[in-house]
Amino acid sequence: MMISIFFMFSLILSSSYAAVQDFCVADYKAPTSPAGYACKNPSDVKVDDFVYSGLGVPGNISNLSKVGISAALVAQVPGLNGLGLSMVRADLEVGGVVPLHTHRASEAIFVAEGKVIAGFIASDNKAYVKNLKKGDFMVLPRSLLHFQVNAGSTPALVYALFSSDDPGVQILQNALFQNDFQTELIAKTTLLDTAEIKKLKALLGGTN
Amino acid sequence: MMISIFFMFSLILSSSYAAVQDFCVADYKAPTSPAGYACKNPSDVKVDDFVYSGLGVPGNISNLSKVGISAALVAQVPGLNGLGLSMVRADLEVGGVVPLHTHRASEAIFVAEGKVIAGFIASDNKAYVKNLKKGDFMVLPRSLLHFQVNAGSTPALVYALFSSDDPGVQILQNALFQNDFQTELIAKTTLLDTAEIKKLKALLGGTN
Amino acid sequence: MMISIFFMFSLILSSSYAAVQDFCVADYKAPTSPAGYACKNPSDVKVDDFVYSGLGVPGNISNLSKVGISAALVAQVPGLNGLGLSMVRADLEVGGVVPLHTHRASEAIFVAEGKVIAGFIASDNKAYVKNLKKGDFMVLPRSLLHFQVNAGSTPALVYALFSSDDPGVQILQNALFQNDFQTELIAKTTLLDTAEIKKLKALLGGTN
Amino acid sequence: MMISIFFMFSLILSSSYAAVQDFCVADYKAPTSPAGYACKNPSDVKVDDFVYSGLGVPGNISNLSKVGISAALVAQVPGLNGLGLSMVRADLEVGGVVPLHTHRASEAIFVAEGKVIAGFIASDNKAYVKNLKKGDFMVLPRSLLHFQVNAGSTPALVYALFSSDDPGVQILQNALFQNDFQTELIAKTTLLDTAEIKKLKALLGGTN
Amino acid sequence: MMISIFFMFSLILSSSYAAVQDFCVADYKAPTSPAGYACKNPSDVKVDDFVYSGLGVPGNISNLSKVGISAALVAQVPGLNGLGLSMVRADLEVGGVVPLHTHRASEAIFVAEGKVIAGFIASDNKAYVKNLKKGDFMVLPRSLLHFQVNAGSTPALVYALFSSDDPGVQILQNALFQNDFQTELIAKTTLLDTAEIKKLKALLGGTN
Amino acid sequence: MMISIFFMFSLILSSSYAAVQDFCVADYKAPTSPAGYACKNPSDVKVDDFVYSGLGVPGNISNLSKVGISAALVAQVPGLNGLGLSMVRADLEVGGVVPLHTHRASEAIFVAEGKVIAGFIASDNKAYVKNLKKGDFMVLPRSLLHFQVNAGSTPALVYALFSSDDPGVQILQNALFQNDFQTELIAKTTLLDTAEIKKLKALLGGTN
Repeated sequence: MMISIFFMFSLILSSSYAAVQDFCVADYKAPTSPAGYACKNPSDVKVDDFVYSGLGVPGNISNLSKVGISAALVAQVPGLNGLGLSMVRADLEVGGVVPLHTHRASEAIFVAEGKVIAGFIASDNKAYVKNLKKGDFMVLPRSLLHFQVNAGSTPALVYALFSSDDPGVQILQNALFQNDFQTELIAKTTLLDTAEIKKLKALLGGTN
Repeated sequence: MMISIFFMFSLILSSSYAAVQDFCVADYKAPTSPAGYACKNPSDVKVDDFVYSGLGVPGNISNLSKVGISAALVAQVPGLNGLGLSMVRADLEVGGVVPLHTHRASEAIFVAEGKVIAGFIASDNKAYVKNLKKGDFMVLPRSLLHFQVNAGSTPALVYALFSSDDPGVQILQNALFQNDFQTELIAKTTLLDTAEIKKLKALLGGTN
Repeated sequence: MMISIFFMFSLILSSSYAAVQDFCVADYKAPTSPAGYACKNPSDVKVDDFVYSGLGVPGNISNLSKVGISAALVAQVPGLNGLGLSMVRADLEVGGVVPLHTHRASEAIFVAEGKVIAGFIASDNKAYVKNLKKGDFMVLPRSLLHFQVNAGSTPALVYALFSSDDPGVQILQNALFQNDFQTELIAKTTLLDTAEIKKLKALLGGTN
Repeated sequence: MMISIFFMFSLILSSSYAAVQDFCVADYKAPTSPAGYACKNPSDVKVDDFVYSGLGVPGNISNLSKVGISAALVAQVPGLNGLGLSMVRADLEVGGVVPLHTHRASEAIFVAEGKVIAGFIASDNKAYVKNLKKGDFMVLPRSLLHFQVNAGSTPALVYALFSSDDPGVQILQNALFQNDFQTELIAKTTLLDTAEIKKLKALLGGTN
Repeated sequence: MMISIFFMFSLILSSSYAAVQDFCVADYKAPTSPAGYACKNPSDVKVDDFVYSGLGVPGNISNLSKVGISAALVAQVPGLNGLGLSMVRADLEVGGVVPLHTHRASEAIFVAEGKVIAGFIASDNKAYVKNLKKGDFMVLPRSLLHFQVNAGSTPALVYALFSSDDPGVQILQNALFQNDFQTELIAKTTLLDTAEIKKLKALLGGTN
Repeated sequence: MMISIFFMFSLILSSSYAAVQDFCVADYKAPTSPAGYACKNPSDVKVDDFVYSGLGVPGNISNLSKVGISAALVAQVPGLNGLGLSMVRADLEVGGVVPLHTHRASEAIFVAEGKVIAGFIASDNKAYVKNLKKGDFMVLPRSLLHFQVNAGSTPALVYALFSSDDPGVQILQNALFQNDFQTELIAKTTLLDTAEIKKLKALLGGTN
């Protein structure tokens, strides 16, 4: 008589190893599906699968764009798998830039330190650009080109949140100039000068 | 000339073993994904993968809540995998109770026998409570605390349907008092008295 | 100091009339969208928007198929709007039939009284047919032709649950023979005899 | 200093083999899930996983319906996996027919050559039928019976697009008459004559 | 010859006022649907519809829980409508608490200042609890009870991100004790003592 | 006795004007939602809401890119609303180009006439480029930059299908150079030369 109803539910729910799917902690070694990573066996899940300390540390800032990126995506935090959200931290040196890029998910940013100019370009080519200060939040809808530039005289810290655990990223300058995408095709499909393309390919390591 | 068009479609569709995915019958032994269980090889699927007799039998009622639960979730019925629905049966003895709990899916109940009081609490804390008689149906939106209590002098039988094949369940009294969740933390995060918490932990088997 | 944190959340959440969207109770008089009905103003929502007594009553059984249908879909129960589930009751007289039909949502049935033969046809034309008795549950995947027939010598009662609040229904005999769909076109696209088509059009009220 | 920001993103994203999930190219030999096929290891993906030449070739037209079907579904084009679209080509001889059938996904057709009559039947049994000429496009909503008939004196070519990489197909005449679905049950659940059923079973290879 | 291709796309896309739906900025005065708020006419959209400064300001901390909440949900930021993400800021005084609560969306938290203990309870009643320091990130899966407690001797600042623009919130102590939910029903459905319930109702403003 | 079961279903389903939602034909004059256009009253729906002849006609080819675009998106074909698919036709003159662009939906193309080079760039900057001939089909995953170039000495005709009724489009050269997006910001966020940017702004009509 003293047995709790939960015992009943437990028997019902535990007839197979993954019956209680409150979460699906990523098993990085198993094959993936369009829905994400396979789930670890629930009995192997630990609280640390949900916890990540990497966002506390700025990414390496010694690059052309003077920006450090630390990410808490599903590739870093297995507990995010299938839950539809993730977070990234961008540390922008003075003069630092998050270059024009897109994601397949929506994003919002929060300025934790400093001043940035941020913006996105809509389908009708209208540019939505705004000067943001510490404490400001801005929405950047999915699939549209967007950017951030440090607009102040001190480093800036920006937190970005995403509507996917795996938002993807396509950085324009890298997509165009850091691969073997043929110069002639780039010229035809962007109207950019061949000389300009070749100069940027040289800078970023592209060929062809 | 006498060959049916279906033969054409068949060739097209059968180039790999899972090409015809009218359904994805759960293979309980393979790893799961955020979308549910892996699919059995279609050639191994039988009509009995879609049929279940367990709902015809009341669950064990010898428990604190005087309620028996029988479930037809994906863990019991492999043919439900990925189809977004499931069903549970609750047999409430006189005085029986389905304690306050939540699911990550929406639910509706149908009173097949007896009388129950059922209700849910909304985000604005408003309680939606109703006396239901045989033949009544009530919607219980996802993620909100809800309950059922036998309000009559005879046993009650309630069928519950869900908008997921794996709706999950979190029973409040068990979540609070049937684990090692620290008494001090419970007190701080619920305002409940320490003595009350300890009493219920003792009753339900919790520690700490 | 005695003010609850909820007061804070309330202010945050109540800045517009629909900010707390635990549910979206259908406003039948406003235009619909691909996501369903528009929501009633939350302040007009009553517990009775979630409660429905019509399932307690068998539908009219005086028809060709000897079956009575009572439904708790979003058109009957405004609280179901957007929640992804609904329920129907079929009362099958001796000899009663739920004719071959499809829904755009998945279904499962539970036999509450009597005996039925139920089944569905898969894309590869395989028929999954089963004799069900009281207490049996069967899954009927979305978009596939399925049926139920009273297989006993007493009335049968079947509850059907759906993975949508608006599952749609296309009854084969009505889709073919109860409209002005041209006999010649039906013959060409089904291989049925013209005489057979005309006979059933006459029976069911079709023309052309 | 000359290292591009992409290098940073790369390190972040490449910590496991499937972290960059721009696409999930089908691995036909691994188990499937409700979300589709498992993904090939990204390092094995080639451009040819996204390219298919089979739509350029008409399907075999030597069949009862005088229609050839070529398909670019996920079973033929692994790069379609999880992306929610696919395409089929139907070549209709003079007198050719795409028989009444349904899919679990929505479809639209484009008439590339010739003239066709196309149509669908809605839930309220209303038939939406239209004479289409070269260049016409028509929408055929999910789960509803629809058809196409060559209405001209020359062959017709129709391209069909789908809102799923695996739309499924249920061809009415095959679902009824090309399997062991019992004649008696078909008669009861469709109102068709036993003789008619037996005749079509004989034609299409059904039994029982 | 000098007209850009965009001009063509523009004509195609602008045939109705909402054809370019990169975003759907909330019109708070129009009726809502299960998919969220109606969209403002795109021609009325301004960059400020995507920008919000309220997260830079702590919420009022003069409450029982010693926590201030500032939110950037769709109710505050119209540009979030339909995009599937939002953010909240919690300022926890020394001794401050975010009480046990649930959302219908998934959450993750980032500790920007101070130390907190955070945790959630799973369906099997296992408590996942962790001491977090500045820079730590933790995942809190949808629909499960979770909490945060300031575990340090200085104020703590926590940013929470959600997988919905309208995640909902149900705070346990308010759902139980800050409404007219009958004491007797609470007692039966939670096992809590009547005296305890009445005490907390008195504290939080509940009746009945 | 002669009344069909459909009559019963009809009564059930027709209690409000939109109860039978097989489709949601766009009402272009009503407000939109994140789920698309509002639905026309079903009684006003005509077969022509599902039919469109515009794809039979090439778009105007007198532009810089020598490409004509005709579209069958939800803005042109109201019957597509909410159904998750659409189609576009691109007529490429000799030397014609569909410039680098992205959509928020996935795309596939079919080469109906001529020869094209088509390709997309993935997140890891790898270019997937292929020479396609008449009859070839190629998948272009959502949100990634892609292009088509006429690679032959005759006009080419390409049909594109999309996994959305409103896929959106962002054409790179227009997004960068056909608006008031500041030259200095473009330079910083793309690495392009100021002179190059100004030259292309002059060509395409941009300012700033």
